[in-house]
Amino acid sequence: MRRELALHTDKYQINMMYAHWVNGSHKRRAVFEAYFRKLPFGNGFAVFAGLERITQYISELRFTEEDIRYLSEQEENYAPAFLEELLQFHFQGSIYSMKEGALVFPDEPLVRVEGTIMEAQLVETAILNFMNYQTLIATKASRIKQVAPKDTLLEFGTRRAQEADAAVWGARAAYISGFHATSNMLAGKKFGIPTKGTHAHSWVQSFASEQEAFDAYAKVMPDGVTLLVDTFDTLRSGVPHAINTAKMLEAAGKRMNAIRLDSGDLAYLSIQARKMLDEAGLDYVKIVASNDLDENTIMNLKSQGAAIDTWGVGTQLITASDQPSLGGVYKLVEIESPAGEMVPTIKISSNPEKVSTPGKKEVFRIVGPKGKALADYISFPGEQEPRSGRRLKLFNPLHPYLQKYVEKYEAVSMLEPIFVNGFQVYKLPVLDEIRRYHQEQIDLFWPEYLRKLNPEVYRVNLSELVWTRKQQLIAEHMMTDLNDGPNSEI
Amino acid sequence: MRRELALHTDKYQINMMYAHWVNGSHKRRAVFEAYFRKLPFGNGFAVFAGLERITQYISELRFTEEDIRYLSEQEENYAPAFLEELLQFHFQGSIYSMKEGALVFPDEPLVRVEGTIMEAQLVETAILNFMNYQTLIATKASRIKQVAPKDTLLEFGTRRAQEADAAVWGARAAYISGFHATSNMLAGKKFGIPTKGTHAHSWVQSFASEQEAFDAYAKVMPDGVTLLVDTFDTLRSGVPHAINTAKMLEAAGKRMNAIRLDSGDLAYLSIQARKMLDEAGLDYVKIVASNDLDENTIMNLKSQGAAIDTWGVGTQLITASDQPSLGGVYKLVEIESPAGEMVPTIKISSNPEKVSTPGKKEVFRIVGPKGKALADYISFPGEQEPRSGRRLKLFNPLHPYLQKYVEKYEAVSMLEPIFVNGFQVYKLPVLDEIRRYHQEQIDLFWPEYLRKLNPEVYRVNLSELVWTRKQQLIAEHMMTDLNDGPNSEI
Repeated sequence: MRRELALHTDKYQINMMYAHWVNGSHKRRAVFEAYFRKLPFGNGFAVFAGLERITQYISELRFTEEDIRYLSEQEENYAPAFLEELLQFHFQGSIYSMKEGALVFPDEPLVRVEGTIMEAQLVETAILNFMNYQTLIATKASRIKQVAPKDTLLEFGTRRAQEADAAVWGARAAYISGFHATSNMLAGKKFGIPTKGTHAHSWVQSFASEQEAFDAYAKVMPDGVTLLVDTFDTLRSGVPHAINTAKMLEAAGKRMNAIRLDSGDLAYLSIQARKMLDEAGLDYVKIVASNDLDENTIMNLKSQGAAIDTWGVGTQLITASDQPSLGGVYKLVEIESPAGEMVPTIKISSNPEKVSTPGKKEVFRIVGPKGKALADYISFPGEQEPRSGRRLKLFNPLHPYLQKYVEKYEAVSMLEPIFVNGFQVYKLPVLDEIRRYHQEQIDLFWPEYLRKLNPEVYRVNLSELVWTRKQQLIAEHMMTDLNDGPNSEI
Repeated sequence: MRRELALHTDKYQINMMYAHWVNGSHKRRAVFEAYFRKLPFGNGFAVFAGLERITQYISELRFTEEDIRYLSEQEENYAPAFLEELLQFHFQGSIYSMKEGALVFPDEPLVRVEGTIMEAQLVETAILNFMNYQTLIATKASRIKQVAPKDTLLEFGTRRAQEADAAVWGARAAYISGFHATSNMLAGKKFGIPTKGTHAHSWVQSFASEQEAFDAYAKVMPDGVTLLVDTFDTLRSGVPHAINTAKMLEAAGKRMNAIRLDSGDLAYLSIQARKMLDEAGLDYVKIVASNDLDENTIMNLKSQGAAIDTWGVGTQLITASDQPSLGGVYKLVEIESPAGEMVPTIKISSNPEKVSTPGKKEVFRIVGPKGKALADYISFPGEQEPRSGRRLKLFNPLHPYLQKYVEKYEAVSMLEPIFVNGFQVYKLPVLDEIRRYHQEQIDLFWPEYLRKLNPEVYRVNLSELVWTRKQQLIAEHMMTDLNDGPNSEI
């Protein structure tokens, strides 16, 4: 199922590539970093995802003859020699990235791309598209997991997903954050995610009676059967009929798995249904609930004592409905000067939090003696690396007077090499390994950072050198770039 | 770029197919209808989209050997003869659908699928996935179009879209509703949508000064050039530098196209930038704005006199951010009885608006003598078709006493045959034809129905026969299906 995605990019990337090519600057080395500025959903962390998709995209990145034909017919009249160069194009740069499942925070590089300005520009759009969506859904799923850590969680959103890729990659992101299964069979096949499904109202409607429909279904799938009990009337028709079917299975030495509630007041109905099942001696029959669930409804239902064992979560998860986008950006942090030197660059903004942090950077997770993460620490590759025993100054980049020192710690380097000079050096882990790594990451953090509402803010610190360099560049821009205009807005 | 999507379905579809197959009922004829119950965004209409994708999906729908191998390894232990049948499977049913670009309303069939219960069940998930997302985005784009009917509208959302398919099919949906171009090159190539792009901040950052960056870009793309003016300071650096570049182009007998504002207060900045451009004699240079725009911000900016000619709309459109899903459903309305008769079916719900309307149905748009749509009218295929001169009773199905009669009208049949017995009979129109059809549809409605806020409700009427049949089936279900339980919740 290989797909041709070279043109899955914004036109301005192709235009800039072309302008650099004409300008003779297209081979200049550049470093870009992808990061987000604000956590989604008011959460205390995000769960990084998208790397597998990015890795496949980069390794398969080629322009087809058809792509080139399309570009040659564009109004821009790209020079034939440029199009010829695109036809030969493959990614020869380097990519460093967070591992999927990692807990990540604002303003730290999640993906770092190093290469010619031409290749690094081309891949911006797709990298952001994949990273933004998958990280968003993994984060949403993780919030849901926090409120129902011991229950079974099923991803049921395909019909409401924003097209096919979202359904399939979203199911994978949910699984990374601890969901147990998906209804999407393509996701099951592609990634080995367990799949689950019950039946629809139409199954019941296609029989003369609900009882007949339940019995027929149970006969075919005697062990795993879950019956949907709300086609006509949950407590007066669905549950009694399901009990009859369960008794029929018992008579044959089998056991029904569950009933599923899909409408009405799920707290009330589940409690009543639980009673009815228990009174019928069916305490082993579980209750699955679905119907526009998210972390808030699940938490409320649980606090009302809902007797629900398994949650089928659809629309709200697969679209991240309360905030359907993560605002990840991709910023140039270093560029080769005409003299061949790598020079840090900055993007100024009248909003201080939007000023980019210049220079190619590393991310370390500083883990204290209790085995819990204390803070993240960002430094330049040339700097002394933090390591235990080496006293480390941690300070808040927005409020530098807030500082503390740590001495005993482990410094875990977070950015893994994925491609080096065009060669893939990273072996993509199997999905269950990613899921385990995510659980380890969760365990690394104090619960205060993981809280769904008003979590404690986990700090991302800059090294003194990174911070000083940033202040210098801001000052220089205020001095030089505006020579021919009055003072800046800043 | 053909993709294998047979497994892009929910597991319960495969399980129901299997259960019908074991039960011997899999060849029974069934009719399903896809519709939504509630308009998104408080809008007065939705814009139907997704048919091209659905049509391609249906014509290419085959299980591969790999799919079958995957299914055979599933815990469900499907019988080998069933899997063999899947390997031979292709869609042999019939599909009727609204045309893309049509204005559509709640509770009317948008897509009708007729076939064996097995094939009609399989395609539910993908049809809903495609229809729900594309209709949602076309509707959102149409709202934006309403507030800026004479401006140029660009779709810029790829990096924030929910994965690749959403970016590409969302760009197409926006174009249907009157957007003029997209930044996504793959959408441009696949569908022939015009593409537009400027440059990024990184272009400016990769030069020693903003002026040098602008001049270099303008030299490469002298006619179409649009310069992004907010890398350092919009009014004190970006606009003055862009004016210099425009003058340089003038000296060479060329004209700059536009400047682009991407941050700050767009009303204030555009008014100031317009003055500066006009004073420099550059009244032909246009102003493009972007930065989290939607129909509300655009309307507000326009009411504040913003001097913006072109709107680049990203995140809010491509994710339909204020309501990121359309709740389209797919309900069984008729099923063949064991005796071979087609029998209408109903899904009861304790929420009266969720009770489905039984029977296979047609949709007519009733157009009055002034050439404007009066109401939609739903009837059974067997009924006398509405046609001019034949007195038609229109009444509100939720409040049947609200009724009126019309006599002079045109009745336009809205559901087109797409597949008949497995053969595609519909020729997919080119995209510009769909876009024109959408404009005709907009022109067919009084502005009161098109208003962004609190629009007049356009009525979807049932024929008396459809209404009576529904009441009968509700009554029957209250009588018979609950024989073995107390009264229903209804």
